[in-house]
Amino acid sequence: MAVYTEVSDVELSTFMASYDLGELLSFKGIAEGVENTNYIVHATRGPFILTLYEKRVAHDDLPFFLGLMEHLASRGVSCPIPIRDLEGRNLRELAGRAAAIVTFLEGFWIRRPTPMHCTAVGRALAEMHLGGEGFALKRANTLGPAGWRPLYKHFANRTEEISAGLEQLIESELDVLDAGWPTGLVEGVIHADLFPDNVFFLGNQLSGLIDFYFACTDALAYDIAVCLNAWCFEQDASFNITKGRAFLRGYEDVRPLTNAEREAMPMLARGAAMRFLLTRAYDWLNTPPSTLVSPKNPAEYVRQLRFHQGVRSIADYGVGERAK
Amino acid sequence: MAVYTEVSDVELSTFMASYDLGELLSFKGIAEGVENTNYIVHATRGPFILTLYEKRVAHDDLPFFLGLMEHLASRGVSCPIPIRDLEGRNLRELAGRAAAIVTFLEGFWIRRPTPMHCTAVGRALAEMHLGGEGFALKRANTLGPAGWRPLYKHFANRTEEISAGLEQLIESELDVLDAGWPTGLVEGVIHADLFPDNVFFLGNQLSGLIDFYFACTDALAYDIAVCLNAWCFEQDASFNITKGRAFLRGYEDVRPLTNAEREAMPMLARGAAMRFLLTRAYDWLNTPPSTLVSPKNPAEYVRQLRFHQGVRSIADYGVGERAK
Repeated sequence: MAVYTEVSDVELSTFMASYDLGELLSFKGIAEGVENTNYIVHATRGPFILTLYEKRVAHDDLPFFLGLMEHLASRGVSCPIPIRDLEGRNLRELAGRAAAIVTFLEGFWIRRPTPMHCTAVGRALAEMHLGGEGFALKRANTLGPAGWRPLYKHFANRTEEISAGLEQLIESELDVLDAGWPTGLVEGVIHADLFPDNVFFLGNQLSGLIDFYFACTDALAYDIAVCLNAWCFEQDASFNITKGRAFLRGYEDVRPLTNAEREAMPMLARGAAMRFLLTRAYDWLNTPPSTLVSPKNPAEYVRQLRFHQGVRSIADYGVGERAK
Repeated sequence: MAVYTEVSDVELSTFMASYDLGELLSFKGIAEGVENTNYIVHATRGPFILTLYEKRVAHDDLPFFLGLMEHLASRGVSCPIPIRDLEGRNLRELAGRAAAIVTFLEGFWIRRPTPMHCTAVGRALAEMHLGGEGFALKRANTLGPAGWRPLYKHFANRTEEISAGLEQLIESELDVLDAGWPTGLVEGVIHADLFPDNVFFLGNQLSGLIDFYFACTDALAYDIAVCLNAWCFEQDASFNITKGRAFLRGYEDVRPLTNAEREAMPMLARGAAMRFLLTRAYDWLNTPPSTLVSPKNPAEYVRQLRFHQGVRSIADYGVGERAK
């Protein structure tokens, strides 16, 4: 939550002149984005978001992220649309950083989602999955199963700082995931981080999806598993089956699941819980206490993981298994 | 530069419903304001700034600041205008903080002002001084001469951490200021902090003044002295007499100085340099190194103060003394 890179008035005025957006009217750094610096830019043609990509972001992947937003928008998915400059480039450089301007998406994220919101997110996720068809670029999921053990190794000797027994939990779970991780599922473009703060609503209507910087090519059903973790647990880590049902029904209204996807869901949900448990534990142990960014407590994902370990079928998430 | 207070979607939607601004479309915390939390709020009726006043700000003074902005705007001074809710209140409470919504002022501040900008600021300052006439509320300048010794006492034993000889400089200068501080000058509402980051431009036109949270009732000419310090020194602390002349001529185009104000200017400029030297030194010594807010180096004001010590008359700032 910070402006890491300051842009001057002259730099930005010059930069904006190479786009067809009219005059620069104002710009203010916003306290959003842990990885990047973002400005709200008002120009004659409207409000936009300017993003400066800080060095933690893999720059080779930027054409994938920006191209994906363009592709999705052209397919009717509401998301920020990269603006191309007068020479047709959607990725530029500004203040020593890779930089892009995207359209400003009105709406705001829902702090306490209801089942109605879950249904809308389910529909939007399925529409994004269908909208992603035909996108030419590929990007591996660097935070998929192959990435979990290397990430865990960075802090394997410090798990006791988080909670007793965490080492045993992670190691046995990684063995289970290695042995049972589903293969052969339908693949495509997934968002991979569709938490409530990445979904905007206006009134009761979903107005768009943002933050595609974890998007990659992977099993579509894994994206569903991420959302079950992100949207359907209460603050006490109990699973809300009403929200699970609402989310899954919303999804299936647009794209019905295959039998293989239904069968795989419990294992995918365990994997998704593991992925966020690992990154949160890493951030928890590696964020200096003095910074203004407060890392999120990984304990939430320990409890979610334990829930998924007890799940026998997708019915436990709120949708009946199909007759085979 | 931080969002100190988080506001939820439900809290803000409820809050906005008590104004006649239409629907809430989006809100984003901005990285501006060292003292307060600010959000850009988009509503059906346009963009606005929502400010949550943190506890460091003296809440008893908020009616002065908000009333002043309303008064100035009604006199044609371009500044953020507080919005009144359906019950006519311009000061409310939100998320446990005093809160106000003001109009969004397009424009941005000039990192490297030219003499042209200085002329525009001079005119705008004089227009603000005239516009402030008739404003009913008063507020003492808490950072005026009576406040300097108490502020200095907080760090008098630590001046060596900033620079050798600073203790001697401050103490002898405070004696000079006590003995020679001008009285009987024209008083009115002054901005008291009109640095470049508080003046917005659009193209070459000044679009407005912001941040009235140091405004108070004091000698108008002291505001001029603040601006001589804030706008007319180069980065190497040399005084740019072209900018001084441009600024003073801009001011006098709108409100000619009295002879007493001209004579007082060197002493007022020393006082203004002292005021910023003291607050910067205090912040420099009291800001934990871990925060994202970097305190500004007080050494700049030591050099500016030394310049003013050598000034004999307002002619040294770029404007000839009048025949008496």
